[in-house]
Amino acid sequence: MTTSPRQIKLGAFLMQTGHHIAAWRHPDAQADAGVNFKHYVELARRAEAAKFDAVFLADSVGVRNRNIDSLSRTARSDHFEPLTLLSALAAVTEHIGLIATVSTTYNEPYHVARKFASLDQISGGRSGWNLVTSSGEGEAQNFNLDAHVDHAQRYARAAEFHDVVLGLWDSWEDDAFVRDTESGVYFEPEKLHPLNHRGEHFRVRGPLNVARSPQGRPVVVQAGASPAGRDLAARTAEVIFVAHQTFDEAQSFYRDIKQRASDYGRDPDQIKIMPGIFPVIGRTQAEAEEKFARLQDLIHPIVGVQLLSNMIGGFDLSAYPVDGPLPDLPETNGGKSRQQLLIDLARRENLSIRDLYLRIAGARGHQQIVGTPQSVADQLQQWFEEEGADGFNIMSPWLPGGLNDFIDLALPELRRRGLVRTEYQGHTLRDHLGLHRPEHRAVVGRRLSQAA
Amino acid sequence: MTTSPRQIKLGAFLMQTGHHIAAWRHPDAQADAGVNFKHYVELARRAEAAKFDAVFLADSVGVRNRNIDSLSRTARSDHFEPLTLLSALAAVTEHIGLIATVSTTYNEPYHVARKFASLDQISGGRSGWNLVTSSGEGEAQNFNLDAHVDHAQRYARAAEFHDVVLGLWDSWEDDAFVRDTESGVYFEPEKLHPLNHRGEHFRVRGPLNVARSPQGRPVVVQAGASPAGRDLAARTAEVIFVAHQTFDEAQSFYRDIKQRASDYGRDPDQIKIMPGIFPVIGRTQAEAEEKFARLQDLIHPIVGVQLLSNMIGGFDLSAYPVDGPLPDLPETNGGKSRQQLLIDLARRENLSIRDLYLRIAGARGHQQIVGTPQSVADQLQQWFEEEGADGFNIMSPWLPGGLNDFIDLALPELRRRGLVRTEYQGHTLRDHLGLHRPEHRAVVGRRLSQAA
Ligand SMILES: Cc1cc2nc3c(=O)[nH]c(=O)nc-3n(C[C@H](O)[C@H](O)[C@H](O)COP(=O)(O)O)c2cc1C
Ligand SMILES: Cc1cc2nc3c(=O)[nH]c(=O)nc-3n(C[C@H](O)[C@H](O)[C@H](O)COP(=O)(O)O)c2cc1C
Repeated sequence: MTTSPRQIKLGAFLMQTGHHIAAWRHPDAQADAGVNFKHYVELARRAEAAKFDAVFLADSVGVRNRNIDSLSRTARSDHFEPLTLLSALAAVTEHIGLIATVSTTYNEPYHVARKFASLDQISGGRSGWNLVTSSGEGEAQNFNLDAHVDHAQRYARAAEFHDVVLGLWDSWEDDAFVRDTESGVYFEPEKLHPLNHRGEHFRVRGPLNVARSPQGRPVVVQAGASPAGRDLAARTAEVIFVAHQTFDEAQSFYRDIKQRASDYGRDPDQIKIMPGIFPVIGRTQAEAEEKFARLQDLIHPIVGVQLLSNMIGGFDLSAYPVDGPLPDLPETNGGKSRQQLLIDLARRENLSIRDLYLRIAGARGHQQIVGTPQSVADQLQQWFEEEGADGFNIMSPWLPGGLNDFIDLALPELRRRGLVRTEYQGHTLRDHLGLHRPEHRAVVGRRLSQAA
Repeated sequence: MTTSPRQIKLGAFLMQTGHHIAAWRHPDAQADAGVNFKHYVELARRAEAAKFDAVFLADSVGVRNRNIDSLSRTARSDHFEPLTLLSALAAVTEHIGLIATVSTTYNEPYHVARKFASLDQISGGRSGWNLVTSSGEGEAQNFNLDAHVDHAQRYARAAEFHDVVLGLWDSWEDDAFVRDTESGVYFEPEKLHPLNHRGEHFRVRGPLNVARSPQGRPVVVQAGASPAGRDLAARTAEVIFVAHQTFDEAQSFYRDIKQRASDYGRDPDQIKIMPGIFPVIGRTQAEAEEKFARLQDLIHPIVGVQLLSNMIGGFDLSAYPVDGPLPDLPETNGGKSRQQLLIDLARRENLSIRDLYLRIAGARGHQQIVGTPQSVADQLQQWFEEEGADGFNIMSPWLPGGLNDFIDLALPELRRRGLVRTEYQGHTLRDHLGLHRPEHRAVVGRRLSQAA
């Protein structure tokens, strides 16, 4: 395989009816998308035909929103568990990567290692795990706790969780299973490596009961942006999803992460940084703005205020005048980085509560582009070429229409500029992303000891 | 839909290379079956074409066998996680039920409720959960414990776990999601029922983030045979898998369970009892015996002795003469009923250790039939007609050959006798099994309070 030029990585971040909070009311949206399997089959096949690197699914192990007036007006309370959905999609796609979010806070590493290893086998090497630490109270209370686990504690657990999962994924060497029917030897005992992990949070003996993955191991993705999140990502992530509002933010994050990765002795090219992009695309600027206005008009104020309350860390804003400024906020235990991002935005542009919720209703803190194929391509190109991004996670405003717009309008322009692939070159998600297949740690160990 | 005559329910109990311990060495077996998705697609489609009610997958969250000499000669250490596999199979089948085993001992009810609810949505109402309490030490040590949880403790947790899962499955009434794009109401708040469970083992607020299942709820299956297991099953199970050696055992179990169910106020017809059957079928008796001998010859004694040690509750038999009798065994914490079953068998027929392992190498305590299509059909018919069984879980000796033999040789004979269906009548697993779709508990409550 000849080395191809660096090209933009593309994730299709699929979210039920779409990323815009009112998307389900859009006349072209699929209102029951969350539990409509055919809907996802179409989206995944469409993204595959367009040569996306992966589809990506977020997750929450609970119903996030505790305000029933608002909750009952949004399409966020009924949706497939992401790994169940991706396993089903694995059977009806051939090339596209399959990335699911699973929290380390309310899971056990053996289950997580096993499910992603299974998905990797079923899909022929296309699975990725978006490791998150969870950000909502609502989740804790489904798992025997009264309150959310403390931020530092979550990250300490996440770091150990990650290491256990990687250890389990190396339970077997690639060629352990000889399956010699003649001699009766199914695997070679010296190629089995139980983990025997005894740490602060976990005791896991292993081995995993799944062979080593086609990809060596599934791709590890992360999306935490706090200092603890960045540090964990720099040490362990292979892909980073992130939310930025401005190019400067994107660039400084990009450089910071690549530097931290280098400091950990890693090749910075082996961490792909993919900010979220919320594109509303029209053939003309006016058409794009009209499409956007149509969605914005569908937001009920109760829904808008509640969304904003959630995004700033759970502080209830419903008592404040909707056309007044954002009040001063106490520090919370939720997602610190996202909260700060929004406060900065409101202060910088002097936004009212309503202005702010209208701003985030779609992109939820990510970069929103309302424009023509050219202006979308211009911005992606700049971020990509000037150390802002290795790729993008496309957050379609409504589905399937918004994804179709990106594919039919923006992608041809990006292709013309040679910025995206026209055919898959390899078979696995690692191949698509340009990530090396990791050697088994025992193989590395043997090579090192032979060299010494 | 007209009520059809009572017919035999059929499960295809798929186990990697097959149920016989040496199946992977069989020339027609698929030696890498455990991680070969195409293999399972073919099996599931074959079973669907033959109108089986369901495919069934067992599970263990760990590698069961701790004797490396034996382990390395069996095909039990690398296989898909069952829910991951069934989700993928849901996408490539249309009618057949999909039953996966998940242990209550090392899981949380929110995850389990959610995954089966998702599978039920993806498959259009075909999911079933085989609730087990786990039986091996190897599993505990992958989940932060040194030793297996005590038997009584496991069942106490299982009972509460079951109730929480059922409560979560009723988080939403069937018609809660109105998704009215005009008014902006996505669901009707009074049709949401958070659980607010606070029990001895679990505190779970809910609601589940998945709509109510197409089946009302996934089918609950159980496989415990101890007194605690029978009691839980009689109260909660809709299908029971069980292992029997003789018709008398089967009949007394059948009557006991149906009676216990009645005592709990349930309709005994709403619990389907499906013993495992390990069929080796030939056009003649000689051909069947030859097929069986061919498999038995492939068992290495190390593997046979270790299998038996596991099956009697983890007591290590490797120090005893293989051609001597089974020693007296101490009571263990593992599966009590299965252990007793084997001890009884050995004493009844005066079997040596080798004789006994040869007996169970295939059927592992289940009923083994080596015979012609007629003799297989005769036995199934007797059990079915004389209160021994409502159906059977077919444990093919090797795969795909053994399943094909059952389908091509035994099924035509059963069809000729009118004992099995020739077409699916309904769409869901409940339809196939003749199980009612449960009403939502709030709907029942409202009806009762109106009647009062
Ligand atoms: C693109 C993107 C997707 C995310 N998806 C999830 C998700 O699905 N579930 C979740 O709990 N958190 C998700 N997060 C949140 C982060 O993983 C993280 O939990 C949050 O930013 C708080 O961590 P921090 O304090 O390190 O920033 C996502 C963040 C980004 C940028
Ligand atoms: C057909 C059948 C399938 C079973 N599958 C599993 C399984 O997949 N995983 C498991 O841990 N136990 C399995 N078991 C074991 C039982 O669920 C149960 O754990 C065991 O019989 C011990 O419980 P008891 O003491 O109530 O009999 C199975 C039993 C039968 C009869």
